[in-house]
Amino acid sequence: MFSVTVRDHMMVAHSFRGEVFGPAQRLHGATFVVDAGFRRAELDDDGIVVDIGLATEQLRAVLAELNYRNLDDEPAFAGVNTTTEVLARTIADRLADAVHDGRLGEGARGLAWITVTLHESHIAWASYERSL
Amino acid sequence: MFSVTVRDHMMVAHSFRGEVFGPAQRLHGATFVVDAGFRRAELDDDGIVVDIGLATEQLRAVLAELNYRNLDDEPAFAGVNTTTEVLARTIADRLADAVHDGRLGEGARGLAWITVTLHESHIAWASYERSL
Amino acid sequence: MFSVTVRDHMMVAHSFRGEVFGPAQRLHGATFVVDAGFRRAELDDDGIVVDIGLATEQLRAVLAELNYRNLDDEPAFAGVNTTTEVLARTIADRLADAVHDGRLGEGARGLAWITVTLHESHIAWASYERSL
Amino acid sequence: MFSVTVRDHMMVAHSFRGEVFGPAQRLHGATFVVDAGFRRAELDDDGIVVDIGLATEQLRAVLAELNYRNLDDEPAFAGVNTTTEVLARTIADRLADAVHDGRLGEGARGLAWITVTLHESHIAWASYERSL
Amino acid sequence: MFSVTVRDHMMVAHSFRGEVFGPAQRLHGATFVVDAGFRRAELDDDGIVVDIGLATEQLRAVLAELNYRNLDDEPAFAGVNTTTEVLARTIADRLADAVHDGRLGEGARGLAWITVTLHESHIAWASYERSL
Amino acid sequence: MFSVTVRDHMMVAHSFRGEVFGPAQRLHGATFVVDAGFRRAELDDDGIVVDIGLATEQLRAVLAELNYRNLDDEPAFAGVNTTTEVLARTIADRLADAVHDGRLGEGARGLAWITVTLHESHIAWASYERSL
Repeated sequence: MFSVTVRDHMMVAHSFRGEVFGPAQRLHGATFVVDAGFRRAELDDDGIVVDIGLATEQLRAVLAELNYRNLDDEPAFAGVNTTTEVLARTIADRLADAVHDGRLGEGARGLAWITVTLHESHIAWASYERSL
Repeated sequence: MFSVTVRDHMMVAHSFRGEVFGPAQRLHGATFVVDAGFRRAELDDDGIVVDIGLATEQLRAVLAELNYRNLDDEPAFAGVNTTTEVLARTIADRLADAVHDGRLGEGARGLAWITVTLHESHIAWASYERSL
Repeated sequence: MFSVTVRDHMMVAHSFRGEVFGPAQRLHGATFVVDAGFRRAELDDDGIVVDIGLATEQLRAVLAELNYRNLDDEPAFAGVNTTTEVLARTIADRLADAVHDGRLGEGARGLAWITVTLHESHIAWASYERSL
Repeated sequence: MFSVTVRDHMMVAHSFRGEVFGPAQRLHGATFVVDAGFRRAELDDDGIVVDIGLATEQLRAVLAELNYRNLDDEPAFAGVNTTTEVLARTIADRLADAVHDGRLGEGARGLAWITVTLHESHIAWASYERSL
Repeated sequence: MFSVTVRDHMMVAHSFRGEVFGPAQRLHGATFVVDAGFRRAELDDDGIVVDIGLATEQLRAVLAELNYRNLDDEPAFAGVNTTTEVLARTIADRLADAVHDGRLGEGARGLAWITVTLHESHIAWASYERSL
Repeated sequence: MFSVTVRDHMMVAHSFRGEVFGPAQRLHGATFVVDAGFRRAELDDDGIVVDIGLATEQLRAVLAELNYRNLDDEPAFAGVNTTTEVLARTIADRLADAVHDGRLGEGARGLAWITVTLHESHIAWASYERSL
C-alpha cells in the first residue's frame, strides 16, 4: 500500500456550542496545519500515487474556501460545531469530490483512500479517513 | 473513521536486562513525548471524538504515576523491561481503564481504539494500539 | 550566556486594519505556539537560569488573559493591529512585569533578556526581544 | 499491535521522465528523511519489537547504497522513475530482505509488517507498507 | 528588536570539490528547507516588521532561480562550492537586493538585518546573517 | 556571520538537590536532543564553517562520555546539579577543547563561537554560548 501526503494550513475564527467546550464556547480562532494523504494499492504508470502538484493545488483550493473566515458565519456549517474533527471530514469530502471530478488528474481515479489530519496546536490534532 | 490525539511527556530513569540492550543495561533515562490517540467510527452529538480537555487531563494523570521516577523501583514493572514498547502498552491500558471507568466522559464510551506513541528521541519512537 | 525557553500556546480570533493585510482584514483566527526564552550571563546558585516551573506557570497565566478570545474586543488592543509581532511584544512585556514583581522567584531578578517567539503556522513566526 | 520506528536520511540527485513532473524533469535533488517502521502483534522475550540497534544499523546500510549518488546512473533504477513512492518501496523491500536474512536478529523473524516513509520536504512525504 | 521569519524550500543537485567533503564529492542532491528572517528595531505604522505576503513571494522568487536545478551547471556558482553556508549567503544577498529595490514594499526599507537558515536534513543546518 | 549546527542526542539519569526542583529531586531521567552550533565571520577556503563530518563525530564523542549513564555517579559533576543549563555548558566547553586540540580540523581554528542547545522535551530547552 502506497501513500502520498501534502501539507498546507488555514487560519479561521469560530466558536462552539455545548458545555463540553468550556472557554472554547467564546469566539476564538485556530491555525490548522492540514495534512492531506492519498492512498492506493499500486502506483500509476508514472510511478506515483497522485500528481503532487495537482494535490497541492486542490488542497489549497479547498482550504481557500475556509481560510481567513469566521466559520460561525459560513452557511455550510449552520447548526454544526466546526470542531477539528468536523473540519477534517469536510476537507476530506471536498477533496474526494475533487478526485471524482477529475481535478487531481485521470491517474487519481485509482486512489482508494483519503486521510485528512488537522493539527490545531503542537499538542493536539484530529484526523478523518474515508474510502474513495 | 475519526481520531483525536493529544501530546504530553514524562521524564524517567530505568535500566534494561538482556545483552540486546548493550549500554542501555546501565541505569540511564529518557524523556518520552507521549501521543495518546483515540479513534471511533462516528462523532458524538457534540461533533467530537472525545472531550479533549478530559483526554488531556487523564493522559496527564496516567503519566503522573510514572513521571520523575526510577522505573526500576516501581512494583508495577517488577521483572519486566520497561522498554518504550512496554511503556506504550502500559499507558494505553491505563487510558483504556479510564475510558471504561467513565473518566473521559460518557461520550467516550463510543471510542473504538486507542493508540499510544512514545517518542524517545528525534530518531526513534514506538507505538501500541488496542481496541476498547 | 545561558538561556532557558518554555513553550505553550493560545487560540485567538482577530482581524487587521490596513490594505497590506489583504484577506486577513476579515475576522479570522490563529493558534500561536508561544516560546518564552529567558537569558542571563551566569547561573544562579541552583545552577539554573530560572525556575522552569514558575516560568511555565507565568507564561500560562499571561496567555490565559488572551486565550480563547476575540482580540478585536479586548480594550488592551483598542486601535492597535494585533499582529504576531505586536502580540510577541505584549507577552514579553507582561512576562517582564512578572519578573519585576517577583512572580518568577527571587533568582529571576538576575535575568537579563526575554525573547518571545510566536509561531502562527509551520511556515511563519515572529519574535520580540527586550532587556530586563 | 506494536511498532518501532527509526529515522535516518539520504541525499540524492535524480530526474524524472513524464510531463506530470514539470520542472522536476530537470536534474535536481532531494534530502529524504527516512522513517523505517516495524510492526508485530506481540513483543519478543526481551519486551521489544526489534533490536533497535540492529534496525538503525540495517537502515543505515540500505541507505548507504543510495546516499550521495545520482540515482539516474544506478542500474537498479534503469527505466524507472525514482519517485518518493518508488524509493519508499525499494527501501522497504531491502529491509524485508534484511529481516529474512537474519540481519535484524533472530527475534525479528516475528515481525509482521514494514512501513517506510520518506519526507522530501516539510510539506510532502510518501509511504509504502508491506507484510513480511 | 522584532523579527519575522517565513519558510519555503528548494530541491537541487550539486557536487563538491575538496577532500573534506568525502562522498559528497559525488553528484548528489538536497532538499533545503529555507527560513528567511527579517529584523528591525521598531515596527512600521501597520504594526509589522515586513509585509509577510511580499516576503513569502520574494523568497519564493529567489528560490525559483535555484530550484529543480543542478547547481554545478549554474554560471553564478562557477568555481564555487555550493555548500549550505554559501547558498545561505547567496539567498540572503538576493533578498537584500529585493529589499533595496523596493520589492518587499516601502515599509521594508526600515529593515536592519536578514538571517537565512538552510536545513539540509533533520540533523544539520546552516545560517548566514547580514545587515541591510 | 555564518553558522553550522549539527544534532545528536543522549539519554541519562540524574536527580537534583534544591527545593526549587520539586519532584525532579527524585532520581529520574531525560533524553537530551543536543544541537551544537559553530559560528565564524568568514568561511574557510572550502566554503564551509567547519567540517560537518568532524563536527558530527566530535559531538558524538563528547556525548558518548555522558550517554546511558546516571550523572549522579559521575565524578565530573560531584556537588553540581546537572541541570539542562549546566550540561549545555559542559558540552560546549568540551567541544571548545576539541576545537583547540585540532580535533575539528585545522580550518576549525577560525571558529569564533559555539552555541549548545539541549532540548529536554517538546516544550522546554536550554542553551549556552561562548566564544572560542
